[in-house]
Amino acid sequence: MSFNQFGTLLTLTTFGESHGPCIGGVLDGLPAKIAIDVHAIQNALDTRKPGDKGMSPRQENDSITILSGLMNNITTGAPLAFIIPNQDAKPSAYQNTQNIIRPGHANATYQNKYKHLDQSGGGRASARETAVRVAAGAICQHLLDQFDTQVLAYLDSLGPITQQIPWSNVTADQIKKSEFFCPDHQAFLNMQDHIEMLQKIGDSCGGIVRFVIQNPPCSLGEPVYEKIEAKLAHGMMSIPASKGFEIGKGFASTKMLGSEHNDQIINTQGQGKHNHAGGILGGISNGDSIWGAVAFKPPSSIRLEQNTLDFNGKSATLSFMPPHRHDPCIAIRAVPVVKAMCQLVLCDLILCHQSRNIHEPYTVPEHT
Amino acid sequence: MSFNQFGTLLTLTTFGESHGPCIGGVLDGLPAKIAIDVHAIQNALDTRKPGDKGMSPRQENDSITILSGLMNNITTGAPLAFIIPNQDAKPSAYQNTQNIIRPGHANATYQNKYKHLDQSGGGRASARETAVRVAAGAICQHLLDQFDTQVLAYLDSLGPITQQIPWSNVTADQIKKSEFFCPDHQAFLNMQDHIEMLQKIGDSCGGIVRFVIQNPPCSLGEPVYEKIEAKLAHGMMSIPASKGFEIGKGFASTKMLGSEHNDQIINTQGQGKHNHAGGILGGISNGDSIWGAVAFKPPSSIRLEQNTLDFNGKSATLSFMPPHRHDPCIAIRAVPVVKAMCQLVLCDLILCHQSRNIHEPYTVPEHT
Amino acid sequence: MSFNQFGTLLTLTTFGESHGPCIGGVLDGLPAKIAIDVHAIQNALDTRKPGDKGMSPRQENDSITILSGLMNNITTGAPLAFIIPNQDAKPSAYQNTQNIIRPGHANATYQNKYKHLDQSGGGRASARETAVRVAAGAICQHLLDQFDTQVLAYLDSLGPITQQIPWSNVTADQIKKSEFFCPDHQAFLNMQDHIEMLQKIGDSCGGIVRFVIQNPPCSLGEPVYEKIEAKLAHGMMSIPASKGFEIGKGFASTKMLGSEHNDQIINTQGQGKHNHAGGILGGISNGDSIWGAVAFKPPSSIRLEQNTLDFNGKSATLSFMPPHRHDPCIAIRAVPVVKAMCQLVLCDLILCHQSRNIHEPYTVPEHT
Amino acid sequence: MSFNQFGTLLTLTTFGESHGPCIGGVLDGLPAKIAIDVHAIQNALDTRKPGDKGMSPRQENDSITILSGLMNNITTGAPLAFIIPNQDAKPSAYQNTQNIIRPGHANATYQNKYKHLDQSGGGRASARETAVRVAAGAICQHLLDQFDTQVLAYLDSLGPITQQIPWSNVTADQIKKSEFFCPDHQAFLNMQDHIEMLQKIGDSCGGIVRFVIQNPPCSLGEPVYEKIEAKLAHGMMSIPASKGFEIGKGFASTKMLGSEHNDQIINTQGQGKHNHAGGILGGISNGDSIWGAVAFKPPSSIRLEQNTLDFNGKSATLSFMPPHRHDPCIAIRAVPVVKAMCQLVLCDLILCHQSRNIHEPYTVPEHT
Repeated sequence: MSFNQFGTLLTLTTFGESHGPCIGGVLDGLPAKIAIDVHAIQNALDTRKPGDKGMSPRQENDSITILSGLMNNITTGAPLAFIIPNQDAKPSAYQNTQNIIRPGHANATYQNKYKHLDQSGGGRASARETAVRVAAGAICQHLLDQFDTQVLAYLDSLGPITQQIPWSNVTADQIKKSEFFCPDHQAFLNMQDHIEMLQKIGDSCGGIVRFVIQNPPCSLGEPVYEKIEAKLAHGMMSIPASKGFEIGKGFASTKMLGSEHNDQIINTQGQGKHNHAGGILGGISNGDSIWGAVAFKPPSSIRLEQNTLDFNGKSATLSFMPPHRHDPCIAIRAVPVVKAMCQLVLCDLILCHQSRNIHEPYTVPEHT
Repeated sequence: MSFNQFGTLLTLTTFGESHGPCIGGVLDGLPAKIAIDVHAIQNALDTRKPGDKGMSPRQENDSITILSGLMNNITTGAPLAFIIPNQDAKPSAYQNTQNIIRPGHANATYQNKYKHLDQSGGGRASARETAVRVAAGAICQHLLDQFDTQVLAYLDSLGPITQQIPWSNVTADQIKKSEFFCPDHQAFLNMQDHIEMLQKIGDSCGGIVRFVIQNPPCSLGEPVYEKIEAKLAHGMMSIPASKGFEIGKGFASTKMLGSEHNDQIINTQGQGKHNHAGGILGGISNGDSIWGAVAFKPPSSIRLEQNTLDFNGKSATLSFMPPHRHDPCIAIRAVPVVKAMCQLVLCDLILCHQSRNIHEPYTVPEHT
Repeated sequence: MSFNQFGTLLTLTTFGESHGPCIGGVLDGLPAKIAIDVHAIQNALDTRKPGDKGMSPRQENDSITILSGLMNNITTGAPLAFIIPNQDAKPSAYQNTQNIIRPGHANATYQNKYKHLDQSGGGRASARETAVRVAAGAICQHLLDQFDTQVLAYLDSLGPITQQIPWSNVTADQIKKSEFFCPDHQAFLNMQDHIEMLQKIGDSCGGIVRFVIQNPPCSLGEPVYEKIEAKLAHGMMSIPASKGFEIGKGFASTKMLGSEHNDQIINTQGQGKHNHAGGILGGISNGDSIWGAVAFKPPSSIRLEQNTLDFNGKSATLSFMPPHRHDPCIAIRAVPVVKAMCQLVLCDLILCHQSRNIHEPYTVPEHT
Repeated sequence: MSFNQFGTLLTLTTFGESHGPCIGGVLDGLPAKIAIDVHAIQNALDTRKPGDKGMSPRQENDSITILSGLMNNITTGAPLAFIIPNQDAKPSAYQNTQNIIRPGHANATYQNKYKHLDQSGGGRASARETAVRVAAGAICQHLLDQFDTQVLAYLDSLGPITQQIPWSNVTADQIKKSEFFCPDHQAFLNMQDHIEMLQKIGDSCGGIVRFVIQNPPCSLGEPVYEKIEAKLAHGMMSIPASKGFEIGKGFASTKMLGSEHNDQIINTQGQGKHNHAGGILGGISNGDSIWGAVAFKPPSSIRLEQNTLDFNGKSATLSFMPPHRHDPCIAIRAVPVVKAMCQLVLCDLILCHQSRNIHEPYTVPEHT
């Protein structure tokens, strides 16, 4: 049991602080003989990296180095460890705010829990840790490819602006075309304007990220405590700034009648006409798309001056002026992380189901 | 690792099917020398039990028998096992629907995963399993009492009706007075009417349950993957019929500005004026109330006739006529379960924090 | 994580004190659709039960009641919980020795750790807990049967007497014929005499139990920390009174030359002519018999008067006179427990290997 | 759950192959605010490194680089990750033996389990992985220092030669003076001669390593499955080439009478006159020295020519000629690893006990 580990049978253990020499992870549990395309991992990391419009100006290459577990780019069954160097760490940038309690930020609770004031840039609470998840998710995708399972994640709303394409019509292409991972072009343009306005006034906003897991294997998920939605929720709510999770119709289902929410069954796998359930019944997949959403609060670090206290309890003011590096809407950069958590959870559940599945186990060809 | 186990250091392992001889659990990890009031456990179970207005007419005493772990009602440090007999199990009640796929229900996915048609009444997917959680939560409360921590859970909305008392003003008394655990009396009356109407037409509705953890210890929660909200979300999304989870302002936070969502800091623990964050910063408690919500879909079992398929893929119709026993709104009976998950998660996190806390560990007097 | 749980993917959680109403366990992880012969479980329990010659006169039926996880004696994939009532519990038998520290016994360390003097008869330290393991092992055997894997365990030495049949020649029949599970009849007769002598003088002796796992599946065991021998050692050293473990040639291998200990390879699975390695290379099975031994100390409870202290530090004497119930050699009754730990570890490792085994997974027919 | 992870609350996750770019580990669970002397870690690594007399001529600096978890050499409470580069990896050295099954070696079982022939130099089965354990153990010692707990490990026998100093008289100084970690100087000289002889004939031998944990905290160890000896056995039997484990009098206890093995109690912690029990009663420490032994087989890689098979089942011969790099007796280099496993297990158990210890928790001053 490690508090810095995610997963039951496919585990990701992460390490590193945002402003140390590197961050990294150990992904353990991948079957042997899966071919891995290292470029695909780097591409995934590139979707998350800062530096683009609407995002923090921090410059990171986020270049991955794999330390173990591969031979000739084929998994060996040994743990796959990797690091991502921190090239642009600037702890000094935080020195003059180190003794000030940041509203909406973890520095007070970290200081009380760990008794030190060293969480410059966020320490383990920093969103930088999520780069490790994105790399691990991209590695996992190679196993999902064996099952023809694909994961989409996209920005559904940014502050007051909501995109209009229904989840079942969103395509990977639409998402790829948008800097904000927003499939609806008009909404994207409006979102850009909104971000510009926020940058001008020095404020931030929240957003909602949606995910769609297309063509997942049937029978994933374990009763009672390892339901798919429970594991997804755990993973999503461990992403910094996430404040809510829903599966299928989610909160909206509370306003529906049972006769309306119940889907008409269309096959013996238990799939329904409208997939209100999000591809899951009783915590177990029926092979239909698994879809849901994650809510992200507005980032706490803003340029607007805020009244607060220092750690001695005295009044203080706080304002993050350039060259400080903060995102006006973290939900944008959370999109690849939400995708990665889907990939990690799904691969984990494939292994969980396989472990007890001696009557009709999954089989995939080995890479030769 | 057991798929039927919840918790990291304080673990609840549950067993039993809804229509077998009993359900039960093993709660392991409680410190020794805590006095347990067995009546308090029974009282908690009584709040969940079926048979009341608006709920399934199934009659269960839900009478708990403790098998181990106590001596003279004081914990010994050994695992506390208990069973709750199933007194009113009627597997035959489901026999004529056994070959029919139930829309919105787990019987199809269970059949595909486990290859048998025996999930009469739901098997492990049955909400009856949650009685074990309620008992375990009530046991955990005895440890929380040592920290003067109390947990409230209440029905915030039922279908289209939402109660109006703000979370911070809700009291245990208001909740106790309402059959539906709804603190707002007028809303409760409207909810009763709504349930009656649903019973007449043979339909069902969803609802939202809120929880408030008052006066939690500081410094609970572990980065990165064991954040309080991640563990709560995992627990809540493992409750049958839950479809969404949020902490603090949750989904509403996505529409707020950072300057608005950031609370003005009022003390060096990092507490804010409005507690928008739900008592948690960076996954760690600041000692303020931890509050949030869980969404429950409308129950799938309704009297209205539904078109569906049987397991051979042939058309079939399904209708649960009396004396079938189903709740028009499962969110009501989920209230004590949401409370129990808070209790379990909190005690687990107390132990997690204590395990590494060698500089300022918690101390409570032992019962003599 | 539960301290009262054994296994990684197939877990046994045990509960109950030796002198409470019952002991019991929850076995979770068994594949669905395995036919279980409940009589076989009871038969296994009967091999362990006290009351025979050379053993404690305590009378227990050790009659198992299964509470969940079976339907028509076929596993459902749900956790299999069971209890074994304590019919002959006599806490009063220990009352006058409760304040006395028992030499070689756990009552002092338990009192210091848990702060109560209630460990009459041993509490969780009691060997009675092992009955639960024997029942669980017998359930696991039904899965091993699908792989034609059988486990032998037998008494190899009792005090100074060592039986003479080499491990590779021992048969299940020879073991079954002996009250002491000793395959060599002449050694058994000598052991009987030795036990009688010990009973006369009121003393006790130790013994060594050997195990042979015949025809195990290949490729079980996981590097680095989940080697077969590491898991077996963990399991065996958790049996009360065990003091040593060895695999294959064990301690004797330290006196061999490499050229002697290295077996000549006889097939491409890596099996050797003499199986010095105990069927394991690098922690992983090669399909050959897995064999080893477990050492048990002499039981601490003897009739001979012993000088000791009470919990106030004052001098005291201790002597367990009839009708006290103690075994002169616990190694005899440990034989079925050693067998059970082999069964539990092997099934667990089958699941572990299967979980990542997507290229050549195990398949067995489902019971219909 | 990761198969490459050791520990319950203090976990070490290791990665890396013997002939990849590096090996490394993530040590998670250390309390914050412990001062770490990085030189002490390097010193521990130096005791294990190859290149000395009687050991493999492979040259490795084994120089540790810490990647995370420290700030100004004080633990932050975040996972402590580190790597040790492989400077002298020569996979080509194994190329011409790659298709040959090595007697007594893991290459056959690895090939069958993972379906690839890449375990040049041993892959994850290589003893090189143990360098990570030694570094982690040395880090853990800093926590043990807070409790004034010290761990000794030494070579007790090498092939037929056994050193003569009783475990309770062995000192750290005696061990440090000997290249073979053998406290008895005359035995050490004889061992040197024996190693020289083996090098001449191209053979290898086994040995026994003893450990003594001086002044451990009381009340460590958890019933039933987390007894100290069970965890130590698990750890020790996961060291490559280990074949046996014993605690206290171990196998010798089987030949003792109960009246002889039972120690006369000397204090209310339950300590005995002779400490036959190895400082443990019922799996829980009584504060006395915890002592035991681990058996190591002769290394399988020898110069003497051996008849074997290749992976196609054809006859082959195998001989490791210089410059091949193998130890005639791996038990020597296993000494620091045995010590490290003691350090890891003890720290883990301190955290386990602390987690439930709310009445009398351990307290140590924080480093400022």
